[in-house]
Amino acid sequence: MSRPFFPAMDHVHMAHALRLAERGLHTTQPNPRVGCVIARGETVLGAGWHQRAGEPHAEIFALREAGEAARGATAYVTLEPCAHFGRTPPCADALIAAGVGRVVIAHEDPFDKVAGAGIEKLRAAGIGVQVGLMRDAAHELNIGFFSRIQRGRPWVRVKLAMSLDGRTALADGSSKWITGDAARADVQRWRGRASAILSASGTVLADDPRLTVRLPGDERFVPPLRAILDTRLRTPVGAHVLDDAAPTVLFHAESAPVLPHLADIQRAVIREDDGGGLDLRATLHWLAQRDANEVHVEAGPALCGALLAAGLADELLVYIAPVLLGHTARPMLTLPPLDDMASRWKLDTIDRRQVGDDTRLRLRPTVQRRSAEVDR
Amino acid sequence: MSRPFFPAMDHVHMAHALRLAERGLHTTQPNPRVGCVIARGETVLGAGWHQRAGEPHAEIFALREAGEAARGATAYVTLEPCAHFGRTPPCADALIAAGVGRVVIAHEDPFDKVAGAGIEKLRAAGIGVQVGLMRDAAHELNIGFFSRIQRGRPWVRVKLAMSLDGRTALADGSSKWITGDAARADVQRWRGRASAILSASGTVLADDPRLTVRLPGDERFVPPLRAILDTRLRTPVGAHVLDDAAPTVLFHAESAPVLPHLADIQRAVIREDDGGGLDLRATLHWLAQRDANEVHVEAGPALCGALLAAGLADELLVYIAPVLLGHTARPMLTLPPLDDMASRWKLDTIDRRQVGDDTRLRLRPTVQRRSAEVDR
Repeated sequence: MSRPFFPAMDHVHMAHALRLAERGLHTTQPNPRVGCVIARGETVLGAGWHQRAGEPHAEIFALREAGEAARGATAYVTLEPCAHFGRTPPCADALIAAGVGRVVIAHEDPFDKVAGAGIEKLRAAGIGVQVGLMRDAAHELNIGFFSRIQRGRPWVRVKLAMSLDGRTALADGSSKWITGDAARADVQRWRGRASAILSASGTVLADDPRLTVRLPGDERFVPPLRAILDTRLRTPVGAHVLDDAAPTVLFHAESAPVLPHLADIQRAVIREDDGGGLDLRATLHWLAQRDANEVHVEAGPALCGALLAAGLADELLVYIAPVLLGHTARPMLTLPPLDDMASRWKLDTIDRRQVGDDTRLRLRPTVQRRSAEVDR
Repeated sequence: MSRPFFPAMDHVHMAHALRLAERGLHTTQPNPRVGCVIARGETVLGAGWHQRAGEPHAEIFALREAGEAARGATAYVTLEPCAHFGRTPPCADALIAAGVGRVVIAHEDPFDKVAGAGIEKLRAAGIGVQVGLMRDAAHELNIGFFSRIQRGRPWVRVKLAMSLDGRTALADGSSKWITGDAARADVQRWRGRASAILSASGTVLADDPRLTVRLPGDERFVPPLRAILDTRLRTPVGAHVLDDAAPTVLFHAESAPVLPHLADIQRAVIREDDGGGLDLRATLHWLAQRDANEVHVEAGPALCGALLAAGLADELLVYIAPVLLGHTARPMLTLPPLDDMASRWKLDTIDRRQVGDDTRLRLRPTVQRRSAEVDR
């Protein structure tokens, strides 16, 4: 299928709509982030973005602002307008009612209640619809939403903070402040856009992390679910992850005894895998079933390595600090030994930048056929 | 001392002179790289750079090109003009004879036969001299020359090619092609600007490297000395470093037996340190005595780590490939264990860029008081 040609002004308005959509990065959970611009020529008549689940969609805000001027204008939407009654009425109907002349869509909505029905509805009403403008950027913006709908599992982003020589902690386990203030603040934003923060009881026992989101000022966000792999339910009394700062779920084996301090904490039984740990694929499936789009992993080398080895780590978010810890310090990832260099784990670097004094790389496995399977 | 104010046009010409000086990066050994521009206002009357030891200095090329027009003009020189008869007559005399009205110098020459004498000579002839324009850039360009003259030892740049998880080879030692073509070509340029390439017999035995310079086309360079730490003189018959592609020196302990195939190879006895290896400081002193400015290190984790631990590694040149080798692979550096995070080795990142698919970082130890001592 050849892509339609879009003139420069279409790109300007769609880029605008994408930037608007980004404003919902921390708040739309579990919905996708969507932006909309209504324009005629270079004149913007209305603009809006989806802010929170249950509240109006991007198109509605933009149409309200445009008012009567929307008649005959072009609507730029980053995701296919919905065609069904959810918590709000269908946006396709609203666009038709407003009399827009043309609709440009960045990305189809794979959600089965939409999945082309929005586009069909608009076309049936005689509106010209074009799809695919800045499609890749629109996909990135909701990569977790697409993953959940299309693959039945969340997009898994593994955060690692390491020294230049690939170490995450000293031999005694101390790991505080490898990276700088700017990197730690940056991590908060990645946590904030996630539906869940995945860790393991080993990390809870060693570091007692809060796994909450701290953003500057009164910036709003939906607190991510703290998801802890805790096979034997060892999370101790008074652990920060048991406080009421955010919701928590403990994944455990069926045989694990539930001590009194965990009686009121959300728990989920996960089947064990061959190695005696919890089945990671089942864990991610559980999270997807609860509408988790992006899962942010902050854990030790064992869980991070296991996710990677199982083909379940979709992205690495790596902060490299300009420090050396030496060969006796703890490794970044525990991975099965390689037989030869040809079988090394290959990644694509999708972003590379400076964050404070640290270097931040975002990478994705080059070949990831297994994890691309639909396993819902 | 307050720095003089330099108008914008001075910066333009000095930047030009610095770019000219860079053309000698691979060829001036053991001399510094120097560029010169003769200008009046924005008009360049003459320009030149030092190309090879024994051939004319930058100022002479620039003065030849400017001819009579040099009278009353300004000369921009990246390094203080020489005042002594070396292999060529003093450049200060040539500038005076040409009647230049003003000389702007980026950096003083610390070499004891110059060391201010060039500036004095010019001033005594009634020429206005200003020093310090773009001084830092001029220092970087000849960082090895300054190191040798001022510290009595070369500038030591340690090259490391590692996986994202800080590994340089698999457990069995195989290390070929961790980084990509572009990174390997880049390394050739760093080798080419060095006076010597330092390695160890362990690397020679494991990988049999050539340690020569391969530059594209017929680009000229002075072949760096291949300097091999070979305490017991184990370099085997037929090793590439024994061929005649470049000069070689083997450093060894006094007690090491000289096998027949090494009889005609340049050798140097170095005292042993407490750990039974060769004294690294003495090794570098030997190289400085033979006019080594920049030493490029390509070796295993033991030598690289030892240089760093001894405060003798001035710079790390690190290529990070987007691959993972796992925790069983070989570490990047062997370093003494740390007691706490506060004692981690801190570095400053001075350059960060993409080279092919790899990330290249250049770093320097943040605190390096010990190695800053003059130890000649």
